[in-house]
Amino acid sequence: AELFDKELYADDDIAGIVTGLAWTQVGGEILLIESSLSRGKGTLTLSGQLGDVMKESAITALSYLKAHADDLGIDYRIFNHYDLHIHIPAGAVPKDGPSAGITMLTSMASIYTQRRVRPYLAMTGEVTLRGKVLPVGGIKEKILAANRAGIKEVILCSKNRKDIEEINQTYIKDLTFHYVDTVDQVLETALLPGQVGKPMKFIFPEERDSQREREVERAY
Amino acid sequence: AELFDKELYADDDIAGIVTGLAWTQVGGEILLIESSLSRGKGTLTLSGQLGDVMKESAITALSYLKAHADDLGIDYRIFNHYDLHIHIPAGAVPKDGPSAGITMLTSMASIYTQRRVRPYLAMTGEVTLRGKVLPVGGIKEKILAANRAGIKEVILCSKNRKDIEEINQTYIKDLTFHYVDTVDQVLETALLPGQVGKPMKFIFPEERDSQREREVERAY
Amino acid sequence: AELFDKELYADDDIAGIVTGLAWTQVGGEILLIESSLSRGKGTLTLSGQLGDVMKESAITALSYLKAHADDLGIDYRIFNHYDLHIHIPAGAVPKDGPSAGITMLTSMASIYTQRRVRPYLAMTGEVTLRGKVLPVGGIKEKILAANRAGIKEVILCSKNRKDIEEINQTYIKDLTFHYVDTVDQVLETALLPGQVGKPMKFIFPEERDSQREREVERAY
Amino acid sequence: AELFDKELYADDDIAGIVTGLAWTQVGGEILLIESSLSRGKGTLTLSGQLGDVMKESAITALSYLKAHADDLGIDYRIFNHYDLHIHIPAGAVPKDGPSAGITMLTSMASIYTQRRVRPYLAMTGEVTLRGKVLPVGGIKEKILAANRAGIKEVILCSKNRKDIEEINQTYIKDLTFHYVDTVDQVLETALLPGQVGKPMKFIFPEERDSQREREVERAY
Amino acid sequence: AELFDKELYADDDIAGIVTGLAWTQVGGEILLIESSLSRGKGTLTLSGQLGDVMKESAITALSYLKAHADDLGIDYRIFNHYDLHIHIPAGAVPKDGPSAGITMLTSMASIYTQRRVRPYLAMTGEVTLRGKVLPVGGIKEKILAANRAGIKEVILCSKNRKDIEEINQTYIKDLTFHYVDTVDQVLETALLPGQVGKPMKFIFPEERDSQREREVERAY
Amino acid sequence: AELFDKELYADDDIAGIVTGLAWTQVGGEILLIESSLSRGKGTLTLSGQLGDVMKESAITALSYLKAHADDLGIDYRIFNHYDLHIHIPAGAVPKDGPSAGITMLTSMASIYTQRRVRPYLAMTGEVTLRGKVLPVGGIKEKILAANRAGIKEVILCSKNRKDIEEINQTYIKDLTFHYVDTVDQVLETALLPGQVGKPMKFIFPEERDSQREREVERAY
Ligand SMILES: [Ca+2]
Ligand SMILES: [Ca+2]
Ligand SMILES: [Ca+2]
Ligand SMILES: [Ca+2]
Ligand SMILES: [Ca+2]
Ligand SMILES: [Ca+2]
Ligand SMILES: [Ca+2]
Ligand SMILES: [Ca+2]
Ligand SMILES: [Ca+2]
Ligand SMILES: [Ca+2]
Ligand SMILES: [Ca+2]
Ligand SMILES: [Ca+2]
Repeated sequence: AELFDKELYADDDIAGIVTGLAWTQVGGEILLIESSLSRGKGTLTLSGQLGDVMKESAITALSYLKAHADDLGIDYRIFNHYDLHIHIPAGAVPKDGPSAGITMLTSMASIYTQRRVRPYLAMTGEVTLRGKVLPVGGIKEKILAANRAGIKEVILCSKNRKDIEEINQTYIKDLTFHYVDTVDQVLETALLPGQVGKPMKFIFPEERDSQREREVERAY
Repeated sequence: AELFDKELYADDDIAGIVTGLAWTQVGGEILLIESSLSRGKGTLTLSGQLGDVMKESAITALSYLKAHADDLGIDYRIFNHYDLHIHIPAGAVPKDGPSAGITMLTSMASIYTQRRVRPYLAMTGEVTLRGKVLPVGGIKEKILAANRAGIKEVILCSKNRKDIEEINQTYIKDLTFHYVDTVDQVLETALLPGQVGKPMKFIFPEERDSQREREVERAY
Repeated sequence: AELFDKELYADDDIAGIVTGLAWTQVGGEILLIESSLSRGKGTLTLSGQLGDVMKESAITALSYLKAHADDLGIDYRIFNHYDLHIHIPAGAVPKDGPSAGITMLTSMASIYTQRRVRPYLAMTGEVTLRGKVLPVGGIKEKILAANRAGIKEVILCSKNRKDIEEINQTYIKDLTFHYVDTVDQVLETALLPGQVGKPMKFIFPEERDSQREREVERAY
Repeated sequence: AELFDKELYADDDIAGIVTGLAWTQVGGEILLIESSLSRGKGTLTLSGQLGDVMKESAITALSYLKAHADDLGIDYRIFNHYDLHIHIPAGAVPKDGPSAGITMLTSMASIYTQRRVRPYLAMTGEVTLRGKVLPVGGIKEKILAANRAGIKEVILCSKNRKDIEEINQTYIKDLTFHYVDTVDQVLETALLPGQVGKPMKFIFPEERDSQREREVERAY
Repeated sequence: AELFDKELYADDDIAGIVTGLAWTQVGGEILLIESSLSRGKGTLTLSGQLGDVMKESAITALSYLKAHADDLGIDYRIFNHYDLHIHIPAGAVPKDGPSAGITMLTSMASIYTQRRVRPYLAMTGEVTLRGKVLPVGGIKEKILAANRAGIKEVILCSKNRKDIEEINQTYIKDLTFHYVDTVDQVLETALLPGQVGKPMKFIFPEERDSQREREVERAY
Repeated sequence: AELFDKELYADDDIAGIVTGLAWTQVGGEILLIESSLSRGKGTLTLSGQLGDVMKESAITALSYLKAHADDLGIDYRIFNHYDLHIHIPAGAVPKDGPSAGITMLTSMASIYTQRRVRPYLAMTGEVTLRGKVLPVGGIKEKILAANRAGIKEVILCSKNRKDIEEINQTYIKDLTFHYVDTVDQVLETALLPGQVGKPMKFIFPEERDSQREREVERAY
């Protein structure tokens, strides 16, 4: 089963769809990360035959977003009143490794903010809990695959710059590279300012007035 | 144990019964997907010796339906106040793979909307979280089995069209093929406009008036 | 450990005890299915060293009963306020396969309705979620064992009729066969109209009046 | 580690301590079943390296008691507001098999009713959900071990009578045998009419008056 | 990693620290049992690479304390409103067996009552649910290790007295032995009457007055 | 994937980031411990492919902090209303052993108090539940790695002093060693008095006044 195909890019007005470059059993490959929110109690579902390391990457990315919700303009109540599902097709291909970390984080940030994702963009990099981006392996194979798939821009950790410089430049003359060190830089590049055409409307149960008013924000 | 038999088609006035074409240990086969709802708290039960990939397909299909409930005219409260059970006979035959994705999704959509399923229809295709339909393998064997079983129409991913064109056309002259790229197209073909003869009546606990009135729908 | 003995039939005034014909490690055998209800929160307990397929059969049977509770005259609140335990002696003998499906369903229907089970009756057949009865294997060995145990009537799937016709009729001249295609037919044959002598009295916590009155039943 | 020793009998004024005859890795042996109740939410804890079959026996015994609580004079609220722990020393010896079923049931019945257990009594037999007692194996070895340990009376399934008759009677002339077919007969023999000297006092949270009064007991 | 060292004894004013003699992969050894309470919901956490038998010992010890809380002067609400953590350093050394039973029970009793533990005391013995102390193995090796570590008093099951008598008395002339049969005797020896210098103050949420007053204590 | 790099030190104004010296599959290595808090219900998440012993170390460290929250000036409500996530990059490298115990504890203490961590500091040592620091192995390799990475101060258990004295002093002339026996000493050295520049503001739901006022603190 092919993991990816070009016309999927046409759908660039849906939040939460981001192109990643990760390892599969057949080497570095392009793959799509899909995020979906539905009313619930804040559970996280991961599907697509993800391995343990990839699952931990998703959990780490979500913790980062929760800890920085205010900075990103995410209403914290979404985390409590909506379930998040992340799926990576094709569902039968086992996938693992930490290199989809920034892609999953971008997908989550897009679905929670309903902001559009820059089209023809792919990315690869490990994410840490405090928002650092770490370098990953298999860069050459991933970049060549991205090129074949019609990708135009790629986000990489700045420590992977040397891997790009080792590639024959004629193969990658159509690609623009964005080298980053932090998640903040990833999101600035990957998320467009505006929301998708029909943004999801979030509904929350009204909390008891008496309780909310008494809720006090105090410095620790 | 035979997985399927023709007279089962007579029962076309029950919601949630859809014919799939999926892989089993003995190759591509026709099988029936059954969905059932009963009052509960929204748990999902899967039975019939389904493998991990098939279970993830079911979860992905359910997430899609939850995220698009309004478009499909499904009252969201059903997800919270009814338990969904999906069973695929025969119960002792192990089944796996993503190709039952659109069939399970159609079965769920039928049971939640109580709409009738088009008779003599079968389908095969992987579903993604954003509603894309992906091609699957084993098409030739599945189609021949469908033909033998009296199936008249088949839904496939448009990327599987080439697999159909390779089959000797005399074997499939009685079959009509519907090629699709999205779940929306699957449901338009598979679900008839009307409900089954005795549609299930959904009962919900009345939510506290004060709370519901104050519940505000606001754009994010 | 012998699985079954004749004098156990004397106890035909207890709800929930039904004679099945299923596979064990030593081939087809007669066995007793026991169901018990006690006040709780609706949990299902299965014991007697049941395998995965047999457990799924029990869950499928229970879902069928829940979805058709009204048709069978079962007060839905029992499912929420009573725990169901199904045990199949002997407890040390591993048991598996789907052929006890209709027997477990009949046992559950009897305990929930407190109706008596027809005496000297045995049955074997797989059950599906929409109430179809599927044929099972090992019919000859099961029937001979039933005959030796003093069984007088047997319920089978109509598709197993050919297996009966292949048996030397002198061995089964004392047996009456009921061929069925649906669970409805099983229950019509297996459950007597009256309740057991001392039917269990179900107690429910009174729901808050205000809430119940406002509970509205509306067609979907 | 020896499983049992004689002076332990001196403590016959504690509820919930019953002598069983069960299988261990070193053959049939005498062992003590201990039950303990503490305020909680009705959880069941089993310890002493019990195997799966033995655990299912304990669960089956508990379900029987719950379903027959009224007959045994057990206030049903105990099951909801007290945790039950069953421990079988020595804690490092693996134990399995169904033959401790009636012993565990008697231990539970004693702790829930606080009635005394007949001293110098041992028992072995499988229990079913509807209260039948089934025969078990290893009778000869178990009985000889009971005799050496100073046991004076033994409860067995009536179907194990033949196993006793095959034992050289000079070895068992000091033992009285009680042959039973039902759990009712076990408890009539094993539980003395009076409670232990310092019976546990059960405390329940007072349920809301308004709710309890409206609670209606109605025949189904 | 050494499991134990002498100067740790200086800290005899902390509740919940008790010296045990248990088996590890390198034979009988001295080890420290640490208990800690923190506000929570009554969960039990065990750490230090404990095996299944040792975990069951801890659970059995806790059940004993809960069932005898009144006798020991423990406010029952602590069990519901505080989490108990038992840790046995060194954290990387696997430990198993039932012989730490009375040590863990003493540690728990100390932390729940905040009573001081007798200094220079060690112990070994299995505990049962009704408070009996059972003999354990490896006594000679454990006692010699205790002597080397500066231990002055040892609690043992009376059935282990014979193991002490077989040791060359010159090796153990500085040790005092306390032989016991019950947990009550263990605690009388091990716990000093007074509390530690800065006893933990337990805080409970005030229960609703109306409810507590109506709470009735009645004999069963 | 390299586990560590020097410029990461520049970020010394984020709470919860502490440098540890622990074992990985390729020997002793420097690694970063990251802690993150987000509003929730007090769950603990651990990621970074941590082994069982390392997970138990984290749980033990958290229990210590909970039991000594008042001493450390931590509002106890944070434990109930915030989720803690600890991640150790690189996420694909398996890590185990108890030697990260004091590092994880320091990271937690920093995130809960929002106090700054001393820059250019690393540490290694096992932690026990009562706050003792135990010696660990691999000291020489860990120290040489710390030196290469630009670390200036190291916290070690006083029992590891002898391991330092065996190292050629020319290799470690730029390092300052802090030998400790207790967690209190670790935190006094590792945490600076002031908070980070933008300390996290903790928000708690206002508890019902009536309840809080009646909450009584009483000595046990
Ligand atoms: Ca930031
Ligand atoms: Ca990777
Ligand atoms: Ca749509
Ligand atoms: Ca497939
Ligand atoms: Ca029907
Ligand atoms: Ca079968
Ligand atoms: Ca009875
Ligand atoms: Ca047995
Ligand atoms: Ca006592
Ligand atoms: Ca031991
Ligand atoms: Ca302290
Ligand atoms: Ca280590």
